[in-house]
Formats: sequence, structure tokens, C-alpha cells
Amino acid sequence: MTQLKDLTTPALLVDDGRFGRNVARMNQQLQRLGVPLRPHLKTVKNIELARRMMAGHSAGATVSTLAEADYFFTAGVDDLLYAVGIAPGKLDECARRIKAGMKLTLILDHPDAARAVAEAARRLETRFKVLLEVDADGHRAGFRPDDAALVEAADILARGGATPAGVMVHAGGSYACRDRDCLARMARQERDAAVTAADALRVAGFDAPVVSVGSTPTALFAKDLTGVTEVRAGVYAFMDIVMAGLGVCELDDIAVSVLNEVIGHRSEHGQVIVDAGWMSLSRDRGTADQAVDRGYGLVCDESGGLLSPEVIVQSTNQEHGIVGRRDGGPLNLTDFPIGRRLRVLPNHACATAGQFNACWLLDSAGQTVERLERCVGW
Amino acid sequence: MTQLKDLTTPALLVDDGRFGRNVARMNQQLQRLGVPLRPHLKTVKNIELARRMMAGHSAGATVSTLAEADYFFTAGVDDLLYAVGIAPGKLDECARRIKAGMKLTLILDHPDAARAVAEAARRLETRFKVLLEVDADGHRAGFRPDDAALVEAADILARGGATPAGVMVHAGGSYACRDRDCLARMARQERDAAVTAADALRVAGFDAPVVSVGSTPTALFAKDLTGVTEVRAGVYAFMDIVMAGLGVCELDDIAVSVLNEVIGHRSEHGQVIVDAGWMSLSRDRGTADQAVDRGYGLVCDESGGLLSPEVIVQSTNQEHGIVGRRDGGPLNLTDFPIGRRLRVLPNHACATAGQFNACWLLDSAGQTVERLERCVGW
Repeated sequence: MTQLKDLTTPALLVDDGRFGRNVARMNQQLQRLGVPLRPHLKTVKNIELARRMMAGHSAGATVSTLAEADYFFTAGVDDLLYAVGIAPGKLDECARRIKAGMKLTLILDHPDAARAVAEAARRLETRFKVLLEVDADGHRAGFRPDDAALVEAADILARGGATPAGVMVHAGGSYACRDRDCLARMARQERDAAVTAADALRVAGFDAPVVSVGSTPTALFAKDLTGVTEVRAGVYAFMDIVMAGLGVCELDDIAVSVLNEVIGHRSEHGQVIVDAGWMSLSRDRGTADQAVDRGYGLVCDESGGLLSPEVIVQSTNQEHGIVGRRDGGPLNLTDFPIGRRLRVLPNHACATAGQFNACWLLDSAGQTVERLERCVGW
Repeated sequence: MTQLKDLTTPALLVDDGRFGRNVARMNQQLQRLGVPLRPHLKTVKNIELARRMMAGHSAGATVSTLAEADYFFTAGVDDLLYAVGIAPGKLDECARRIKAGMKLTLILDHPDAARAVAEAARRLETRFKVLLEVDADGHRAGFRPDDAALVEAADILARGGATPAGVMVHAGGSYACRDRDCLARMARQERDAAVTAADALRVAGFDAPVVSVGSTPTALFAKDLTGVTEVRAGVYAFMDIVMAGLGVCELDDIAVSVLNEVIGHRSEHGQVIVDAGWMSLSRDRGTADQAVDRGYGLVCDESGGLLSPEVIVQSTNQEHGIVGRRDGGPLNLTDFPIGRRLRVLPNHACATAGQFNACWLLDSAGQTVERLERCVGW
């Protein structure tokens, strides 16, 4: 067993106890709502953690890349929703995966994309299963629920030999909420958009058996998901400072952190230099738009205890982080001797974890770690 | 041979012709100045490209992680400067590498770090070679050239059985310049800080044979490097929009780009959705502080031709990029059919390339590509 103290820095840590609590919280919420989870695995990108998220649910998993699809399929997860609008250039390789036994579901939000899928379905003799992406909040992508192009796309798919299997909605706009009422409202809006769009498909003669919604904030704050058949969420398992800033979790729910070491002092500025820069923390500045800007992350001691809500990573270079006080005042540098180990809680778990090709699962005593690989690339 | 059109998106491309021109330009500049290059390999993270950067120079290479050191050492590069202040927790593994034949040079900028190295030198019976990091511009780390602690640290190293071999300076402040005069001034300042510090060591009785300076802007705009024994630079081989914004290169010198594909339209906003988000482009917003903010990068056609200086990636999610006009006006969406392939020039080459574990070297005809692995992690 590897000891925490023997890890080379920077290293990505996952607190086993916090991870387990976060998973249990989502499971309880969805049990109450009576909807299964199709966890989004882009956050953990690891099969052992994925299995813990999928346990007790029967809805398969969600991925953000075909590399993730391959990695999880090889590990035995065959029901995979690839939740990024399908690029026509990827249809040949999707067909190869489906022929190899992967139950791969695609998404799209444009009749031209449906035409590309229909063309490929005929050419490759492959029955693609497709969800129509629906927009709940103008955040990113999707048909409006009442857009005639939604039914048009379903029709193009069906005539082309593909299966329009329903709808999916991601209320990414929930990340801009500032209070829990807003989160509950966004959850309602996401559910309503999905159900309205699914009903429009049914009126047009399609079954639309799948009504898929989700984001971590809306999943945890939804009060009623009548008509929804599955929920997608990923960040909930790790949590992060952005989620804490939204009121979705507390800081001590954050299961992921970057272990690092003090390598220098900026005495004139009362700042400390650590060996975690943007290469490990990521350049994500997700708290910049929140009520409290946490720079590149909040600083904890080696065992994960918060030093102070004021001590953050203020700036980064590739492999350097500058730690200081949010209020600009000096740190007491004698508290940060060269060689002291610290941890940084990330703004955005997906972005920070995304910088690592492995993470270390830390036991509940905080002493020993187990290496878990992470799927990287595309 | 793989064809460009057969690549799965997103993919990191390196234009062979532009890469070669960028390398030749730096070589000509340093030949004129009479100083060898110790290229910083954190940008390319690949041995084939590294060999082209090192050709004709005898100064070894620079790395930003011990994983890079291992990768390049295994490929036959044995003289390696690890240019991040040494973390005491890494000294045992550094000693193992030195015993395996790696000519590894460390850096530090605090007497306590020197004490840690001296302690490890005795305990591990290893003669660590160390450069003292010197600060030229208050940018990040380093002893001030006239700081008594500089000589104190050299003394601690020498008494402890380590080798204080000279000084190294990185004028990272050059990235904040807005004109070429400023770049030339920063180059002068960097050289002067290094030479002054080396002289201080010599007055105190140390040889200080190594006087190492560098950043891409200062290396290319230095007029005189008398007293300097080696120059470090890495970004110059790829170049990026930040460098173009500084006046260090032109946009058509940028050798690196991210191939992507149009997956959707935001018709109401006149925007296009592509399958390159922050996971591939990185979250780097290095042009946000420059005269022209380029969002998450400038958009080119599939063959690398700039569409317009106005068309940028305006925002990103994990695997989605939103392409639009800088002035907020609508794109003509018929120019961006679903399935069209584009390329994005990055703000910061190190950050964007850092998201990929492989790149594709594109031949001068722009047709065929060769896969080159990249060293990732720590």
C-alpha cells in the first residue's frame, strides 16, 4: 500500500469517505424522485469510481468522448450515452463500436445532423440510436421544445433507418444560479422542457421512450421529475468550489484535491510558491463570476483541513502556483516552510481532474492511497 | 500514412513547415548572439520535435517535470535542467535519477531549500548540481541579484557537498510587454540580473560557470548576451496568439492548432458549436489582458487559413466550443455546415498542447499526418 506521504507532487487525491457520501446523497435524492441515474463519467474517468456511481441504477452511463466510451466498454459497461452532439465525421467509428456490441446512444440538435446520421445508417447498415437534444435555458445547444425542427429531425432519422429514441436536456444555465430557489426553478424548467419535447414527438407518432435530464445542481434540487426516465450528473461525486459557491454542497463535501509542496517564498509579497500550477490545477477560474472569487482554488493542509477561507492560489504558471491571501495581506511565511505539503480544492472538479491520467484514492484514515487510472484523450 | 481528413476530432496538429521556420529563426538569432540554446521541452513534450530544437546546440535541454526528464532521458537526452524550484520531497527520486546516469541540474531560490539539498546530498551520497534562481522582474521566483541570501545559499550547498553551478533567470514579466522596445529592455534586464548575480557568486569565491537566461520573447529580442552561457526557450517552436499579440511573431507563424468539427448551430445567436471545448483548447485566456482579446482562440479553415481576425471561440464547455464573431455580430451559418472541419489557433501553445497526449505532424502539403506521442503527467 502506498502512503500519502510518499506521493510525488502534484498528485490528484480522491477522498474515499467524501466520495461515498456524495454518491449516497445523490442516490437518496433519486430514490425519492423514483428516477434512475445514468452517471456522467467525464468527471471521474475511472472504472472503479464509475462502478460505485452506477451501483443500484440500471440506466447505463454517460460519456463525453469516444475514448471514454471505449475505456468503459472494455471494462464491461455497454450502455453508453455519448452526450456531445455527434460530429458527422465520427459516424463511421461509432458504427464500428455498435457492431462490436456497444449500446451507444448519440445526440443531435439539427436536421442536417439527422440527415448525416440517416445517410450513415444506410451506408454503414447500422441502426443508430439517437436522442434529440433539447434546450431548456438558452445555455448551449438543443432544439427549443416547440421547434418544428425537432419533429423534422426525428422524421429524418426514422425514414433513414435510425431510431429517434427520445430527448435529452442539460440545464447548464443552472451554474449561473445564486440561490437554491433558482436551482429548484432550473430543475423544473429542465424537466418541463424535456417532457414537452417528448410529448411533441409522441403527438407526431414517435414513442420517445427516453426522457433524459440532468446536471448536478438540477438533479439535487429537483422536487418532481414526473415523466423523466433518467437523470444524468457527474460532478456530484467529486463536488468542487463552484458547487459550494452555488449552495449545492459544503466545502467539506469536496472529495477531490491536488497535493502539492511549498518550493519557495515571495517574502516581499507575503506569498508562497508551490509546485502545482495550471498544468495540474487547470486554468479554470469558475469562481471568478461567483460571489467569492477563490482564484485557482482553496488551500488546505496535507490532511485536507481548510487553512482559512482566505488562503487561495492567486495565480499560476505551468508548474508554479502562487499562494496568498484573498484580501492581499501577507501570509505568515513561517507557517509555510519550504517542503511543507498542502492540498488545493479545485474550482471545477472536471477541469482539474482532467489534467491527470491517474488519481489516488485516499482511505478514510487519510494515510494510504490506491492508484486509479483515468481515461484521457479522445 | 494517415490523411488529415481521417483524423478524429479534436486533434492537435503541428505544421511541419512553420515549426521548422520557427526553429531556424531562433537558431539564427542565437548564432548571431553566440550563445547556445537549451530548449525548454515543456512545450513540445515529444522527442522527435525536441531533437530538431536541440540540433546544432550543445547545451542539453530544459524540462518542467521529472516525468519529462525521464521521458527524454530514456530517449537519449542526458543533460537536463529541471527548471522548477526543487521540492525537498523530490530529492530522493532526483538522486535515483542521477545515480542512473542522468545529468540532472536542479534550481532553488531559498537558503532553506539549499539546506534541504545539502542534507539530502549527505544522506543520499549524491552530488546535486544546482543553479540559483535569480529574479529579474519581480514576476515569480528568485533571489534578487544583490541579495546576500544568494551567496548564503551557494555556501550552504558547497559545504553540504552539492555543486552551486551558477545562476538561472526567467524574465516571465516579458509576457506583459506591449511593444518591441519593452521586449528588448526585458532581455537586457534579464541578462543583467543573471550576470550581476553570477559576478556576486564569483566575488564570493564560486566559479559560477553557468549563466542561464531565457524566455521566448527575451531570447528573440536580445541584442547582446555577453556573459550568458545558455539561453532557454520553448514556446518559440510552436508560437501562439499571445506571442503574436506581443509582436514576437505573426499569426501565420503559429505552428500548432486544434482540428475540430462543426456539430451544431445556435441560429438565434449566429454562432456555431464545435467539438473542441476547454478539455482540448485548455481554459487559457492569455489574450484577455492583451490589446485584442481572442477568446479561446482564432478560427481557421481545415487547411489552416484564417477565416477572419473576427472569428473566435467565444466560450467553451468541457467538449463544446462556441464559435462566433468578436464584435457580437452573427456568423453566416451557411458558411459553417454541420460536419465542416475547422482549426483553432491557441492563445497559449503550452496550455493547449498540454491537453493532448499525442500530436499530429502535418506535412508541408497539408495532407498527411504522422502521430507523435507526448509525455504527460508528473
